Amino acid sequence: MHRLTIQNFGFARMPEVCFGPGVLKQLPQRVKTSGRVLLVTGSHSFLASEAYAALTQSLAQSGVTVFQTSVSGEPSPTFVDQSVDRYRAEELDWVIGIGGGSAMDAGKAISAMLPQQGSVADYLEGRETRKHDGRKIPFIAVPTSSGTGAEATKNAVLSEIGERGYKNSLRHDSLVPDIALIDPELMLSCPPDLTAACGLDAFTQLLESYVSTKASPMSDALALSGLEHFAAGFLPAYEQGASDITARSHMAYAALLSGVTLANAGLGVVHGFASPIGGYFDMPHGVVCGSLIGEATRINLEVLFGDAEKNRIVLEKFARVGVLLSGRASSSLERDCSKLVTALQALIERTQIPRLGHYNIRPSDFPRILDKTTNKNSPAVLNRDQMQSILYARL
Amino acid sequence: MHRLTIQNFGFARMPEVCFGPGVLKQLPQRVKTSGRVLLVTGSHSFLASEAYAALTQSLAQSGVTVFQTSVSGEPSPTFVDQSVDRYRAEELDWVIGIGGGSAMDAGKAISAMLPQQGSVADYLEGRETRKHDGRKIPFIAVPTSSGTGAEATKNAVLSEIGERGYKNSLRHDSLVPDIALIDPELMLSCPPDLTAACGLDAFTQLLESYVSTKASPMSDALALSGLEHFAAGFLPAYEQGASDITARSHMAYAALLSGVTLANAGLGVVHGFASPIGGYFDMPHGVVCGSLIGEATRINLEVLFGDAEKNRIVLEKFARVGVLLSGRASSSLERDCSKLVTALQALIERTQIPRLGHYNIRPSDFPRILDKTTNKNSPAVLNRDQMQSILYARL
Repeated sequence: MHRLTIQNFGFARMPEVCFGPGVLKQLPQRVKTSGRVLLVTGSHSFLASEAYAALTQSLAQSGVTVFQTSVSGEPSPTFVDQSVDRYRAEELDWVIGIGGGSAMDAGKAISAMLPQQGSVADYLEGRETRKHDGRKIPFIAVPTSSGTGAEATKNAVLSEIGERGYKNSLRHDSLVPDIALIDPELMLSCPPDLTAACGLDAFTQLLESYVSTKASPMSDALALSGLEHFAAGFLPAYEQGASDITARSHMAYAALLSGVTLANAGLGVVHGFASPIGGYFDMPHGVVCGSLIGEATRINLEVLFGDAEKNRIVLEKFARVGVLLSGRASSSLERDCSKLVTALQALIERTQIPRLGHYNIRPSDFPRILDKTTNKNSPAVLNRDQMQSILYARL
Repeated sequence: MHRLTIQNFGFARMPEVCFGPGVLKQLPQRVKTSGRVLLVTGSHSFLASEAYAALTQSLAQSGVTVFQTSVSGEPSPTFVDQSVDRYRAEELDWVIGIGGGSAMDAGKAISAMLPQQGSVADYLEGRETRKHDGRKIPFIAVPTSSGTGAEATKNAVLSEIGERGYKNSLRHDSLVPDIALIDPELMLSCPPDLTAACGLDAFTQLLESYVSTKASPMSDALALSGLEHFAAGFLPAYEQGASDITARSHMAYAALLSGVTLANAGLGVVHGFASPIGGYFDMPHGVVCGSLIGEATRINLEVLFGDAEKNRIVLEKFARVGVLLSGRASSSLERDCSKLVTALQALIERTQIPRLGHYNIRPSDFPRILDKTTNKNSPAVLNRDQMQSILYARL
């Protein structure tokens, strides 16, 4: 086994977590001392659901004044600015983002901008002209799918579509939601293809942060716990997710922890790819992750085994995940690592994650993707050829 | 292996963590936007240290106005009230508690009472006549020993000495420190006996919360990580703690996580004993824990093995800790569990943790101790005879 190491690390505040089937019913009592909330929702399907009707009814019965807005697709700076203008005078006590990553990020950005001046576009990472001072309206995140982990992260991804399009984050330590209210019952209606893509997004976040160069003992403990629950829940959630609340719970937990660990340990090359691919093409983030994670893991391992002695600690981490996914340890580091690749490829096959070509991505697009792809905190530094081979393998 | 379960759970906000040798130097930049801080310290030894001189100097250089107060021994409600009266008009931006559990708890209580009315005694759990509303002055905890985990908990223990003495907590979710700044360099000067007692306090908190009836996957992941680092650091910190910064780091990390897990999963019968023993006798909390944890674990296991099938999941947890402490797994659950007891007894022997008799506790004192001892969240419910046998074994 590896020698136990410990180095300097930081760990941002986590949200208060309220987890389990039925916890959505606790929402009114969490906000009842205050009177005015803004619900930011995503999909029309949630707005049409019984859960939504019950929630707004019980909020009203608790004397809460409810405002509501919806975001379709990924939130844009314009949507955030308009919402802030519209609700600034309402003196909101809480903003609640209910939905997938887009709805939670939209709510997070609105809660963060209500007490600030100017457009959110001025505050976006990489293009900022103003600095966010951390003040915000208290924010509750309620995920309805198990994927992005936005219920635990300190950033909100905003997208501008078009010629001068971009995808950037509003980021501040204080943007971690005050409460993450995670009710796996809300996930029962998530369709299989979305369940698979979101689940592999969570997996990618867990694996990349677990083997990240920025990992700490604390992020490792949580990443490993998330990976254990992913292993227990992923296929059952895909195959019988409409009725298997235990599988949904495992995946909801895995997704939550993936948000915690990515916020504190960073990510790897798959997320390096995800930014440009998501910017140029209409390929959902979870599908990008699911499509590339198997091949990216294979090449990472190939490079790391080039100096197995030096990379022993991180290779043991990959091996441990291989054992988790395959259910059985061997006595060989190399064999356990290759089990990880085999298991991932089997999951990707089984859940029919689409390839790049499905979204009209062609080899002629590779150069501009690769121009903007970074290794992030990958344990192996891949060169351009190695990165390109990942794309070819998944064309 | 155990089947992976997942049930409803809550997890309070954790502090932001800033961990590692040298991080104390980051304190001024963490408070620099605000001008006025109160340092609450404990021991005279820290006040006389170079670290303290360097800290106050760098705070002053950053333009921070520093007030300072010291608490000797465990903080009393009177001390907290007097400090609040004295500093209320100063419009403090931060309270910083630097020291052992007493100094951190004193600072935590002062930060919590500055915006409240009346005496802190009115707010103490179990005797409250007023409810704390959660408002406080931002609080930073800086431990100088590795034990109580107060840098991560949501309560401050206050003690009234004398005829009508008591030991109760001021508790509120918002009392979790905003920042836990953990610098193992501050622990190098902690003497061996204190290192052992504090270390076994942290161990007891980790083990009791790991096997607690209130444990969750998230508290389990963190407890196990803390236990791994305890196993790596405890004896080296005891034996060469003046120079072994790695051992101090392992123990500082274990103590931090013990605070996180106790706050979220509860404790067991050793902490059930600690309240009355600490109230009636001048026996330090860490020594109570260290003195009783071996025998308490032995009896817990005896009871749990009475129905090994039903208790399989929690027995596997005990076994896992036995393997951690002994360094080697067998194929037998019973053998791995008994390794835990043997390893604990060896650690207690090796570090010469005093027995109850050393503090003039006699069998005639047992009834009034047992009258107030509860099982808390122990996995096994011990009856009075079984509890008494723990005390006799450690007389």
